[in-house]
Parts: sequence; C-alpha cells; structure tokens
Amino acid sequence: MQVTTLPAVLAPVISPFNAQGHIDVQKLLKQCQWLRSNDAGIAIFGTNSESNSISSIEKMEVMEKLIAGGLDPKVTMPGTGACSVAETVFMTSTAVKAGCAGVLMLPPFYYKDVSDDGLFAHFAEVIEQVGDSRLQIYLYNIPPITQISMSLGLLERLITAYPNTIAGMKDTSGDWTYTEAVLKQFGPRGFRMFAGNEIFLLRTMRAGGYGCISSMVNIDPCRIAYLAAHWHDTNADQLQAELDLVRAALIKFPTVPTMKAVIAHFSKDPEWARVRPPLVSLTVEQQKQMARELEKIHFSISGL
Amino acid sequence: MQVTTLPAVLAPVISPFNAQGHIDVQKLLKQCQWLRSNDAGIAIFGTNSESNSISSIEKMEVMEKLIAGGLDPKVTMPGTGACSVAETVFMTSTAVKAGCAGVLMLPPFYYKDVSDDGLFAHFAEVIEQVGDSRLQIYLYNIPPITQISMSLGLLERLITAYPNTIAGMKDTSGDWTYTEAVLKQFGPRGFRMFAGNEIFLLRTMRAGGYGCISSMVNIDPCRIAYLAAHWHDTNADQLQAELDLVRAALIKFPTVPTMKAVIAHFSKDPEWARVRPPLVSLTVEQQKQMARELEKIHFSISGL
Repeated sequence: MQVTTLPAVLAPVISPFNAQGHIDVQKLLKQCQWLRSNDAGIAIFGTNSESNSISSIEKMEVMEKLIAGGLDPKVTMPGTGACSVAETVFMTSTAVKAGCAGVLMLPPFYYKDVSDDGLFAHFAEVIEQVGDSRLQIYLYNIPPITQISMSLGLLERLITAYPNTIAGMKDTSGDWTYTEAVLKQFGPRGFRMFAGNEIFLLRTMRAGGYGCISSMVNIDPCRIAYLAAHWHDTNADQLQAELDLVRAALIKFPTVPTMKAVIAHFSKDPEWARVRPPLVSLTVEQQKQMARELEKIHFSISGL
Repeated sequence: MQVTTLPAVLAPVISPFNAQGHIDVQKLLKQCQWLRSNDAGIAIFGTNSESNSISSIEKMEVMEKLIAGGLDPKVTMPGTGACSVAETVFMTSTAVKAGCAGVLMLPPFYYKDVSDDGLFAHFAEVIEQVGDSRLQIYLYNIPPITQISMSLGLLERLITAYPNTIAGMKDTSGDWTYTEAVLKQFGPRGFRMFAGNEIFLLRTMRAGGYGCISSMVNIDPCRIAYLAAHWHDTNADQLQAELDLVRAALIKFPTVPTMKAVIAHFSKDPEWARVRPPLVSLTVEQQKQMARELEKIHFSISGL
C-alpha cells in the first residue's frame, strides 16, 4: 500500500484553454514543471481543473501527452471519477497503465441520497474491472459539490475488501470532526489523508495525515509544501497563519476563476483566465480587486 | 419550432441490463414497442434510464441500434445532457443526425451555485457547435438532483437567442408555482411544457402545457397518454385521481428500482430488476410489499 514517491502536497492543476477552447498541453506541461520545481505534486483533472467540463477522452489524451513531455507519473494523481463505471474504468485503467502514483476518484455524483451499498458496488465494480494490483485509489470526498458524504461505514467496507487498493482520501468536506474521525479510525492502517483545503493542513499533519490537495497549491505551492514538510517545527502555527492570509484575501471570489486569474496576472498571460462553462471568468473589476487584495498582503508569484 | 410528430406523453424508458451489465438492446427495443403500442413516446436516457450510469458511447450505439431495429426517431427524445460541452455535443449531434424529434438536455450538473451567465454559455456553445437547424432542445429542469433551477431570466435569454432551437422543457422541480410561471411567460411563444411528474399532468394541460415525461409512464403509459389526450373531458379530474393512486401506492419505494421491479414482476422476467450502481435493486421484501400495494389498487400490466 505504500507508495514512497507521492508528494505530500499536490496541486489540483488549473487547465489552460486556448482560443478554440481546447487544453493547451504545452502551457499545462510548463505549469506542471513550475509546480514540481516548487515541491508540489500534480493532481490534474480535479475540481479546480474543471475536470468534469472536459471529456474523458480529451483528459486521457492530455495526460499521455504530459507524460510523454516529461511529467513524472510517479508524482501524478489524475482525477478519474465519473458518474458511470465505464468511464471511471476507462480513465483509471489509462492512468494505471501510464504509471501514475494513484488516482483521485469522485463517487458517482448524479443521483442524490444514494446508499452505502450502491456506492460500495460502484467502487467495487471499478476496482474489479480495472483489475490491476498497481491501482492506488484516493477517494475524493467533496460533499459540498457531490452532495454525497462518504460514511465511515462505507470506508470500513472498502478498506476491508480492498486493503491494497484503497490508499487514502482527499477530504473537502470542510468538516474537521469528520476528517479527524477518518484519521483516527483508518490512519493506523496506512490510510493517507489529504486535506482538501490547506487551512486544515497543520491539523491534518498533527493528526497523522499525509498532506493536502488544495486549490491554493496552484498559486502558493512552495510555502504549502514547506509546511507539510516542517509541521514539527516550532513556527508551524505561524506558517499556517501565513497561508491562511492568502485564502482570506481571496475568499470572496469564486475559487477556480480566481486561481486562473491569479496565474494570468502574475504570468502576464491573460489566456490563463479562460474557463469553460458553466464557470465564468472574473470580471475586469473583480480582477483588479483580486490584485489589490494580494498586494495588501504582499503576495506575489515568480518564475512562471 | 413546431414538430407535429412528438407524442404528448413520453416514457423515460428504464434500461434493461444483462448479466454482464450491458444494455440488452433487444429487450429495450421490445419495451419501446410496447410503450409505443400504449401511446407513449420514447424518452430514452433520462434519469429513470440510469443515463448517467451509462457511457456516452454506449448510449449512442444503443440508440442507433434501436432506430435500426425499427424505433421511429420522430417519437424519440433521447437525453443528451452531460457535464461537458464536448460530450453534450457528441450525443446531441448523433441524435439530430439520427432524426430524433428532440433531445432532453440536462444542465451541466457537477458544479453548484453556477450563474445564469455560465449556464447560458454552456447551452449556447452546445447549440453553436451542433450547428444544425433541425435541433430541438427540451431543457431538463430537475433541481432535486442537479441542485440547479433554471431561472425565468435564463429561459428568456435562451429562447430569445435561439427561438427555433429551444423548444420546451421537462420540469421536474415539483414546484407548481415555477411550472405555471414558465408556462405563462413562454407558453404563448410555443414553448412546450412537459410535466416531469404525472401528478401535475392535468394542471399542466389546463395551463397550456404539452404533456408529461414521467417515471410512471414506464408502467402506466396508456392511461397517462389517455388523460393527456382527453384533458378536456368532464371526467378528467377522476382520471387524474386514478393515476395519483398508482403513485401513492409506490411513493415509499425508490423510483428507478421500483419501476424496474414492477416491469420485472408483470413480465415475469427478473432480469428487469437489475440496476447499475450507485442505485440498488429492491430487496425481496420490498418487492413483495410493492406487489401487495399494487394489488390493493387492482393495478396490473398486460402485453409485456
């Protein structure tokens, strides 16, 4: 179950779209390289990547091009969860064959009020159909969007049935009581917890977690990775507080368009601001406000 | 904008899965023929069809086989909405080229709290990319599942921008005030309202609506189609009350597995009861209860 190459902090990498609306693979590769040089791993095709606004086929083609272009699959965790078993299996198998360290897997998110039996059956079918002992699944718990919270009972069943495959979780519940309960029950068995929001990073590390996969890693990778590596240090609370300032500065803006606007701003490349529907880009006024907020806290990005 | 062949009542046809979990095309074709002989149109790949648990490619292959097998596309309205523009365009284009009377289109349903601007951009991109004057879109409003309610402002923008393409709506909001407001504002312009639940059928017809697309059409097509055709009759309220009895008898069971269990029961074909995850089939005890409830109201199905 142990994969030693996986970084503790990964960026759910924002997806650059060209004027035709397609993913600009070279720009994305360059961004991944910048993230790597700032100590972050690569969680392409997450919520921040607008993953579900991109077809499964386009995603897998892009992933293969990134790896062919030099992205190390051993530090890469693509999102491969879809509503259907078939599409989940297609993307997951492709990722495993490409040598990815793991996959981040949403539950099927169309139906609401689904049962643990139904969710278990979904993940079990995926695992059986992929049928590859290298598969490492990180469950993606994000109830504010999926409206599905993965119960401790479901996790227990999955980990018991597939101890070598269910490797951990990204928890974006925003509910620390839940995160803590998962860590307490499953951490001792090697289950790796990634906070879905870096404001929980220090608490997650102290409770035995592995790291975080958070939108802010897109713009502040180095400091977030540093805290994950130095959470034992005496100034760890101060480091966490500094990270929290950045989130506080941006909290009033919509997350994904804002991450893209920040990168567009500091890279002086307005194309980065482009999103796919149903998201919309920040207005010019919002972009200015965002820049002012970051200036107030002396935040900037270099090397893009 | 007028398509004269479209039935007033369509079934969101349940999908039969074989032991390998694939759609049994011959069984589905037979079911469509039975529905047609009971005056219902064919809305394959809706929520009741477990559409989002089936890959886009499998859906389109099945649709083409059904049409090759004799299903009339002029009475067919497949669901073609997906989270991504690309997959929506793929399925919608395929349906238009196959000659389907219309398509039932979900909004992109992954992100929550999306704006009208973002939803408009999604539908506009789909329409522009399909680029076919034959396209007739019926918007699928189902906020209990998508958590997205299509505002009157959004509908106004879409109908104004694409008056020959935005043909109507299936409204499964369960909110009669909303349905009535949509009918009042857009009905006079030829916008066709399908109730998403047959309990609203008579009210919908009296307010100028077109018909309904409802789970119960899967098991009670003839009487629902009869009411839609005879809503002017003096006994229309009595007919509606009779339909309501069936829904009341089944209300405590989960919808999709129950529709399948009812067809399995009356066709004496237990394979019909199979569902895809994350849904789960009724338990044996639930199946017995369901049969007892239907017996109490003397409900049965023949000709399957």
